[in-house]
Amino acid sequence: MSVMFDRVAFIGMGLIGSSLARVIRRDGLANEISAAARTTETLDTIQRLGLADQVSTDTADVVRGADLVILCTPLSAFGKIAAAIGPHLKDGAIVTDVGSAKACVQREVGPHMPKGVHLVPGHPVAGTEHSGPEHGFAELFLDRWCVLTPAPDTDRDAVAKVRALWEAAGMSVSEMTTSHHDQILAITSHLPHVISYSIVDTAYQLGEDLQDEVFRYSGGGFRDFTRIAASDPIMWRDILIENRDAVLDILSRFDEDLTNLKRAIRRGDGEELERVFTRTRAIRRGIIEAGQEKLEDQKVSTKSSDKG
Amino acid sequence: MSVMFDRVAFIGMGLIGSSLARVIRRDGLANEISAAARTTETLDTIQRLGLADQVSTDTADVVRGADLVILCTPLSAFGKIAAAIGPHLKDGAIVTDVGSAKACVQREVGPHMPKGVHLVPGHPVAGTEHSGPEHGFAELFLDRWCVLTPAPDTDRDAVAKVRALWEAAGMSVSEMTTSHHDQILAITSHLPHVISYSIVDTAYQLGEDLQDEVFRYSGGGFRDFTRIAASDPIMWRDILIENRDAVLDILSRFDEDLTNLKRAIRRGDGEELERVFTRTRAIRRGIIEAGQEKLEDQKVSTKSSDKG
Repeated sequence: MSVMFDRVAFIGMGLIGSSLARVIRRDGLANEISAAARTTETLDTIQRLGLADQVSTDTADVVRGADLVILCTPLSAFGKIAAAIGPHLKDGAIVTDVGSAKACVQREVGPHMPKGVHLVPGHPVAGTEHSGPEHGFAELFLDRWCVLTPAPDTDRDAVAKVRALWEAAGMSVSEMTTSHHDQILAITSHLPHVISYSIVDTAYQLGEDLQDEVFRYSGGGFRDFTRIAASDPIMWRDILIENRDAVLDILSRFDEDLTNLKRAIRRGDGEELERVFTRTRAIRRGIIEAGQEKLEDQKVSTKSSDKG
Repeated sequence: MSVMFDRVAFIGMGLIGSSLARVIRRDGLANEISAAARTTETLDTIQRLGLADQVSTDTADVVRGADLVILCTPLSAFGKIAAAIGPHLKDGAIVTDVGSAKACVQREVGPHMPKGVHLVPGHPVAGTEHSGPEHGFAELFLDRWCVLTPAPDTDRDAVAKVRALWEAAGMSVSEMTTSHHDQILAITSHLPHVISYSIVDTAYQLGEDLQDEVFRYSGGGFRDFTRIAASDPIMWRDILIENRDAVLDILSRFDEDLTNLKRAIRRGDGEELERVFTRTRAIRRGIIEAGQEKLEDQKVSTKSSDKG
């Protein structure tokens, strides 16, 4: 790979940012990487891992002279960061992000971008339940999808450059409107997280007496939820609040569907249960065909129990 | 291992039954295995796999002379099977099962057991989302828990024999009352299944236009639910109906906890969300400490996305 950017600035460098920095280092995609973080502890880790040439707690310092600025903090910090870096961005710079909700990026970052700076919001749909720069790895993005949500009048060259970066990381890249992104991700990611947090909290609230037994018999399905519910609390607090309209909308639909199942269970309506449980299998096949379930995941999945 | 039973009869031989039959064959735990199934197709598969010495669609044929009879069909068939085999059971025979709800076994099988026959209901908490005898494997039970729920006056020798069989399969075995079992499993397994079926059905009902995109971006959490929601529809129809009281009770609690989260999202109450999302992490640690998350699962879990 050849150099794509002279200088890339990361604002925040957790799991996603550090994984992308590793890709940039591995393939020599930038001459220089700078990184800002809130704590000197994180900056020390970033330096120890060799992920940045220059680090600072001052975001303005870090973006000066950068061709590409990538926001990798929790979403609630975006507005403040945009206000702080706006005046220091170089003419022609591209600003992108990795946030899991997109309408809020346009809304909170957009107004602070000076003329001549290109905002290209992005969302690499990849991750693990671990957080922090020490848990990143360059292969995180392989064969996953990245969504870009530029406004219609955005400079196409800027969009192409951000696209090329994620493609270099191994992702397929698609473009859509912010509202479409926020609806789709509300279903495929935000809803599963709310539900997982909720179900694990239900178990938590049963009290310590029952918890040991819940751990012991977690192989029957519960265990999978606990992994999702171990995700970064701050990141998820922000995603759910920033994308609240789409999340609440899909939660209402989920409520209706769950009520239907509850009613069938209460009435002993086996036909309805069988009908629903049969059609949900088709979705699984679709996921496997779409290549979003890897062979190795499938292999291990046979060890993960689904037996009552 | 030495021979534990002269003759073991399986009524139904799907994933669980065939896995146990493989253990019995591997370790020579029985001199003879007989198996009944509803269809000759399944019986052919069982014979082709060498999992039984004698097969029949007639359950009475299969249990004659058996020391141990294991019910491995969906729960809704138990009452009818018990009535059919009762008169043909040998004096001193042990009858057990692998069903995921236990009060119903006592209720539906118990009355058909002649004096001198020992009913020891059991539940090996292990499985995969695949069903059928061809998907079984002897290692399925390794390091998982099996729950036995004998009535207080059950012959202790009979309980000890069933315990020894599951221990030979690599399981830890515990005993508890049927109602306690049904409550615990409602939380750790039945609730996760209802929720997974429901969430995947919500996506299904969005229509085909959106489904392709749901597949594509499923890595954000949804994918894990689709695996659970691909479980055997008949088996799960029966579990939820047979254990409906405990399932509906835990669903009400879940409803309350989800309503609390929805309210926090709607109000933008980040503190409450952060508080809940932080305490759910503790549950994950408990599961890992209880040894119910294997190292290989953990390794692969880093490839399974939890990013919004």
